[in-house]
Amino acid sequence: MRATVFRGSQRFGLEEVEKPRAGVGEAIVRVTLTTICGTDLHIIRGEYPVKPGLTIGHELVGVIDELGPGVEGYQPGDRVLVGAITPCGQCHACLSGHLSQCGHGSGYEAMGGWRLGNTLPGAQAEYVRIPFAQANLAPVPAGLSDEQVLLLADIASTGFSGAESGGVRIGDAVVVLAQGPIGLCASLGARLMGAALVIGVDGDESRLAFARKMGVDVVLDHRNQDVAAEVRRLTGGGADVAIEALGTQPTFETALRSLRPGGTLSSLGVYSGKLQLPYDAFAAGLGDHRIVTTLCPGGKERMRRLMAIIQAGRVDLTPLLTHRFALKDIRDAYELFGQRADGVIKVAIRP
Amino acid sequence: MRATVFRGSQRFGLEEVEKPRAGVGEAIVRVTLTTICGTDLHIIRGEYPVKPGLTIGHELVGVIDELGPGVEGYQPGDRVLVGAITPCGQCHACLSGHLSQCGHGSGYEAMGGWRLGNTLPGAQAEYVRIPFAQANLAPVPAGLSDEQVLLLADIASTGFSGAESGGVRIGDAVVVLAQGPIGLCASLGARLMGAALVIGVDGDESRLAFARKMGVDVVLDHRNQDVAAEVRRLTGGGADVAIEALGTQPTFETALRSLRPGGTLSSLGVYSGKLQLPYDAFAAGLGDHRIVTTLCPGGKERMRRLMAIIQAGRVDLTPLLTHRFALKDIRDAYELFGQRADGVIKVAIRP
Amino acid sequence: MRATVFRGSQRFGLEEVEKPRAGVGEAIVRVTLTTICGTDLHIIRGEYPVKPGLTIGHELVGVIDELGPGVEGYQPGDRVLVGAITPCGQCHACLSGHLSQCGHGSGYEAMGGWRLGNTLPGAQAEYVRIPFAQANLAPVPAGLSDEQVLLLADIASTGFSGAESGGVRIGDAVVVLAQGPIGLCASLGARLMGAALVIGVDGDESRLAFARKMGVDVVLDHRNQDVAAEVRRLTGGGADVAIEALGTQPTFETALRSLRPGGTLSSLGVYSGKLQLPYDAFAAGLGDHRIVTTLCPGGKERMRRLMAIIQAGRVDLTPLLTHRFALKDIRDAYELFGQRADGVIKVAIRP
Amino acid sequence: MRATVFRGSQRFGLEEVEKPRAGVGEAIVRVTLTTICGTDLHIIRGEYPVKPGLTIGHELVGVIDELGPGVEGYQPGDRVLVGAITPCGQCHACLSGHLSQCGHGSGYEAMGGWRLGNTLPGAQAEYVRIPFAQANLAPVPAGLSDEQVLLLADIASTGFSGAESGGVRIGDAVVVLAQGPIGLCASLGARLMGAALVIGVDGDESRLAFARKMGVDVVLDHRNQDVAAEVRRLTGGGADVAIEALGTQPTFETALRSLRPGGTLSSLGVYSGKLQLPYDAFAAGLGDHRIVTTLCPGGKERMRRLMAIIQAGRVDLTPLLTHRFALKDIRDAYELFGQRADGVIKVAIRP
Repeated sequence: MRATVFRGSQRFGLEEVEKPRAGVGEAIVRVTLTTICGTDLHIIRGEYPVKPGLTIGHELVGVIDELGPGVEGYQPGDRVLVGAITPCGQCHACLSGHLSQCGHGSGYEAMGGWRLGNTLPGAQAEYVRIPFAQANLAPVPAGLSDEQVLLLADIASTGFSGAESGGVRIGDAVVVLAQGPIGLCASLGARLMGAALVIGVDGDESRLAFARKMGVDVVLDHRNQDVAAEVRRLTGGGADVAIEALGTQPTFETALRSLRPGGTLSSLGVYSGKLQLPYDAFAAGLGDHRIVTTLCPGGKERMRRLMAIIQAGRVDLTPLLTHRFALKDIRDAYELFGQRADGVIKVAIRP
Repeated sequence: MRATVFRGSQRFGLEEVEKPRAGVGEAIVRVTLTTICGTDLHIIRGEYPVKPGLTIGHELVGVIDELGPGVEGYQPGDRVLVGAITPCGQCHACLSGHLSQCGHGSGYEAMGGWRLGNTLPGAQAEYVRIPFAQANLAPVPAGLSDEQVLLLADIASTGFSGAESGGVRIGDAVVVLAQGPIGLCASLGARLMGAALVIGVDGDESRLAFARKMGVDVVLDHRNQDVAAEVRRLTGGGADVAIEALGTQPTFETALRSLRPGGTLSSLGVYSGKLQLPYDAFAAGLGDHRIVTTLCPGGKERMRRLMAIIQAGRVDLTPLLTHRFALKDIRDAYELFGQRADGVIKVAIRP
Repeated sequence: MRATVFRGSQRFGLEEVEKPRAGVGEAIVRVTLTTICGTDLHIIRGEYPVKPGLTIGHELVGVIDELGPGVEGYQPGDRVLVGAITPCGQCHACLSGHLSQCGHGSGYEAMGGWRLGNTLPGAQAEYVRIPFAQANLAPVPAGLSDEQVLLLADIASTGFSGAESGGVRIGDAVVVLAQGPIGLCASLGARLMGAALVIGVDGDESRLAFARKMGVDVVLDHRNQDVAAEVRRLTGGGADVAIEALGTQPTFETALRSLRPGGTLSSLGVYSGKLQLPYDAFAAGLGDHRIVTTLCPGGKERMRRLMAIIQAGRVDLTPLLTHRFALKDIRDAYELFGQRADGVIKVAIRP
Repeated sequence: MRATVFRGSQRFGLEEVEKPRAGVGEAIVRVTLTTICGTDLHIIRGEYPVKPGLTIGHELVGVIDELGPGVEGYQPGDRVLVGAITPCGQCHACLSGHLSQCGHGSGYEAMGGWRLGNTLPGAQAEYVRIPFAQANLAPVPAGLSDEQVLLLADIASTGFSGAESGGVRIGDAVVVLAQGPIGLCASLGARLMGAALVIGVDGDESRLAFARKMGVDVVLDHRNQDVAAEVRRLTGGGADVAIEALGTQPTFETALRSLRPGGTLSSLGVYSGKLQLPYDAFAAGLGDHRIVTTLCPGGKERMRRLMAIIQAGRVDLTPLLTHRFALKDIRDAYELFGQRADGVIKVAIRP
């Protein structure tokens, strides 16, 4: 079968590899739609370490091709969505409710629950092997297309979990720092949970315009203004929840400074190097702030709940899929997505 | 001034009474809009005990007329919304976060935090005295009309709190038993919080039709079907949250039977007599159910948050105000509302 | 091997049965200590339905004898504790955090997560087959004896979860209705969580005396007094949390009447028939009560945490093991335990 | 009356000042016992800004001397404990449950809810004026001495809240960084809530020995070892909760590195300058950490709950009061406490 294989910094592409077989508790899924994540860009640039030879990609909709021993209640041919995080459900972390921190290790190199395209062969391929299949195959309801559900596998789940971990309540004011795909989904999640005011912040005009179109109440361009001051002004004292979705010192610090006393900073971004907390926002617990870092929970129950949202028409994520490619053209897809060319937000890849 | 005074079962009406004065910590508010609650019907029918001579009514928008000593940060002339519950903020219950159970007692006959039109003179009058004014005067944002915010004082706050106490999460299936004003607001609250499926149940076709129009996803007529079975079918095993908003044995029992294992029954209804829990729904904790009874929290912060929802256009409650009366015609308003005539949902009374 | 087999009402006893083998994801454990639960009494009396021919018992410490395919990180010979609830970790209920409601069904008759001695062969035997072994084998720390950890498998876990589900906080007043083994463990759990006052209620003097000895602050004999009134007097208005651990109408009603407004009733008892809620304790949400029914979560992480409590010396459960029997004498053990003779609290059975 | 007045860096001492009078909602309390807090040292050293002329001190037990208009349910002569934080109960922050962030401002310079000895005259005096007296006078139960309850006003409440905000559960492993008075109380709080293992860290042998004596399970001297590595070893992967109670970069960073994935850092320390988060502990939400900063809630309900703990004998704080002084010798008390001489932990000052 064909798969997108990482060979080293900037060296990757389609290769013919052996089709996988399902071991105990595993399933083989024929991929019908996948996508590229910002993390995949880090991988192909050599900025995030994976072993050369790995098939990359961690978001997929597909059809069950083979079921290993011990997987019950499914049939080959079933359409399924699989989340980027594939928890085992049976380790101490999972049984404590920290599915994203799944520590099931032996036989797999564990790094939390993110395995596909990280420590196990990934989804930018014709077939993918799903570990702990019982916990991770989420049947797609009839009537929902691949495109409608694909982004739930990671960015929408992650974005929504930024709002969920932040504890957004009816009537809250929420500011979301950066309006890339994850930040945009965090904004949508805040609206879904009853926020009265969702403020989206970015420095890219087209992303701000798109955020407005998707229902973000107010957008702020950080190039033009003191965002924290403006948020405090708009909210009469500070946001209830600030969601950081970029992973830089300025966005983190702005998020913290935008909060009201007692507010929550929900952190989704990936940081590198040291992150500094300004003392005046954090001194003495005088702000009673909470900082919550979230890696979205995975598992079929999470996927089921999110598909219910789509089915009910509460949110439509298909406008985020701005471009479509065949698997054979995946390098073109990486190039477009990596350069943020042509107003791309997310790409759909069809094997 | 004129006030609606209760004199005994079925004996009530407008009377000329003395205009109140503000004591320490109190305010006098000139009422600009008020309404009638189902509880008021119980009072005038002699089914709920209040002292003869009491002015009734507990929902109001108005203008500050006088401020007593110790009330700071307000000016006469400010437009304010006052909730049905007027917590003191300073007793053990309030400091524990149970504002609706406010136990501040001496000088007032305490019965939880509901005082206006219950143990203190109420709002169906030209002026009303507000206890603990510092905690209870919520400024109305410019641009919002009296009609837009009036129902937040009680039924919307109560209805929403049914969803909040139920812990509705993104993707939940929620069933709401009865679609009267409170049940309808509970349905709207469940949607606001991200429910994927809101099922409204009633036995009145016009209420079901109105619920559909207001955005309830599915409506069930309990006269035609086994509601619990249908809810379990629609949800694939049971609702995550069932909200009971009527206060009868059948609706309570249906709510309990509609839940999935681990689900939450949020109870808003007023029960009389004994309530029976069927053992098969409750045995042995085998269902891990939670039953939560809620009297909505009051206070100006609650009112502020709810007005933010209106201001953001997330919900429009004005369609519930189906009829309008002048204070002088309040007996006509009671008659229409009491008989549920002419498709009435709520009435607006303007002094 | 020998196993305690149920044949019909009052017909049960040791039989020679085939030693089980481990299938995919399963383990065989050689039982080194087990016990009898109140539920087992219901079974042998024909009051709780299980299939004739079933081996009963659901609490065990033992040694791994065989591991099926797909179970990793264990070795035959490891000492393990297995909880009464054996969740799969991979179904929708488990992935939602409702481990006790495990709905993994095909191949097993599911009834929540309680399987051993209910829908699968149980632990009052020389060997027992553990389903979903990866999620349910909890290694016993060196230095802890079988007797120290045995009761964590069910009654201590259940009792503690009564306090946990009740949300006991530092400084709370907690009343526990009935001081049998589970109620006593609930009392200990409330103390563990920081309750300032734990009130134990029973009608059996020896149980009240034992409760005092185990650290319950105040004991009340319900035969002599109005318990709810006395609790309200002792607590200055009502308990923060009431834990019901018997399953009768009077104890449930007393629990509800003992609460302060805003308090929580945590229900552990097994009810039969209809349960009545008195309207005056439940009307209109005026009490803002929560009623929480709990079936303790199982799984190896739960067992690990509870063993840590024993290891730290916070609680010693061995005084509850008042009598010891060999497996061959299990009918004598049932007789003593069933008659509550000789001050028995719990019995230890050694195969 | 005599009061301890701050005049400028290192300039402070007893002065004769006018006895205060109670305004609306206020009370005058005759101080019978007070103490010195680490924050007071910062004040007299000019490191924390207060206005010259201010009476300092914010912890007190005393007797009501005078009640202003609007304060009900108390009598002059009542013994009361008053917390360091004096919330109004009626502002938006208080009504949201963030009592420590009380924003009641006009008439007082607001800085969260800490007013005594900060923006209002404090407690190291013969008399002190209590704002929002209705919310802040906590009657001392008969039988409890001043010394038994004094430390609840601040350090025990703060220390316990470190454990409470951290969400300590039965069976948790908790590490507390620094074992000064607040860290020690945080350790006691973690035990109170059911932690199975409490690890206390400090670099002062006498404090470690005292912590052991007070019930801390394991103590670690950070001068001798890699604390984070040792905590991970002792806990098999990391603490569930780490409480930071000093306010330095090394302790904060060690706290973060000591956590298991999904763990909570509860921050009580006062930081100055920038605080750095190491990226490898915080990257990408991969740890699912929570960081919670806490300023303990105040108010009479909090004080009541904590006094119940003392009354029940769960904790005895009197061993922390190592030295006693008369008010006239307060400069001696400051000198001893400031130099941490003679093994001092806390001093009691009796006017």
